[in-house]
Amino acid sequence: MAKEPKQLDELFHDTLKDIYYAEKKILSALPKMAKAAQNEDLRAAFEKHHSETEGQIERLEQVFELIEEKPQGKKCAAIEGILEEGQEIIKEFKGSPALDAGLVSAAQAVEHYEIARYGTLRTWAEELGLDDAKGLLQETLDQEEATDQALTELAETVVNQEGQAEAA
Amino acid sequence: MAKEPKQLDELFHDTLKDIYYAEKKILSALPKMAKAAQNEDLRAAFEKHHSETEGQIERLEQVFELIEEKPQGKKCAAIEGILEEGQEIIKEFKGSPALDAGLVSAAQAVEHYEIARYGTLRTWAEELGLDDAKGLLQETLDQEEATDQALTELAETVVNQEGQAEAA
Repeated sequence: MAKEPKQLDELFHDTLKDIYYAEKKILSALPKMAKAAQNEDLRAAFEKHHSETEGQIERLEQVFELIEEKPQGKKCAAIEGILEEGQEIIKEFKGSPALDAGLVSAAQAVEHYEIARYGTLRTWAEELGLDDAKGLLQETLDQEEATDQALTELAETVVNQEGQAEAA
Repeated sequence: MAKEPKQLDELFHDTLKDIYYAEKKILSALPKMAKAAQNEDLRAAFEKHHSETEGQIERLEQVFELIEEKPQGKKCAAIEGILEEGQEIIKEFKGSPALDAGLVSAAQAVEHYEIARYGTLRTWAEELGLDDAKGLLQETLDQEEATDQALTELAETVVNQEGQAEAA
């Protein structure tokens, strides 16, 4: 008998493992980004998002529980690449007034990856009738969108401050 | 004399090279995604986005011209990782009713990467007084956001169709 093709529930589970791995990587990257930040508000934003990320990981663990699976990560090439670009910026723009702008940019690439994944997982949870999981995923999605919005506002602030620093 | 730290104009140029590389990779990935798609509307969406991407590459070339630089790509680890995950889905879900859902998910991860990058570049273009570049980047940003929105609607359609196919 031929092997049954994988179904939506498996795609959901695979993607859950992908974002679980990604969130753990993000959790360890955020303190480095906070440390590199020159602007106080930006540093505070990274610190705030660090504790939010801990909550997001807990919610993912609850979703694993709801589908009766063990919380487990699966290597996510996307987040590795996105974070690698952030590291490069920290290295290449050290000591530059443009560093903060680069850090915001790197953080927004991370946020958008998460927004894409949580949006997808939320839609699939609905289709699979996983209402509790859908609620948890929606909660994190709302948080990621708010973080992205806050970063957009910070992007304008840090860039303007740098302009002033150069003019001074 | 110590080397001057890199400034915002260099960060802008570096990020422009990053997204130029990414767009070219996306251009070559889209026909594979269209070929793999089972749903006609999804295939049409990938084909439409392929021709949009050609226009986006042309606009990037205009931005390079505006800053008097040669259009040139710079290896972008993020898009490599994002597209690699899309390839994995095509391979692992071949023949599955969930394949289209996976393709939409992969495409939305790509769109969100682009939305993050174009949003950043647009903000920086404004700060650098590059008004024409800002307009070109905003045009592409609007297009990427519309594509993401269309994919969100398709995500619900393809997932529902699969549910019906399974029940039939």
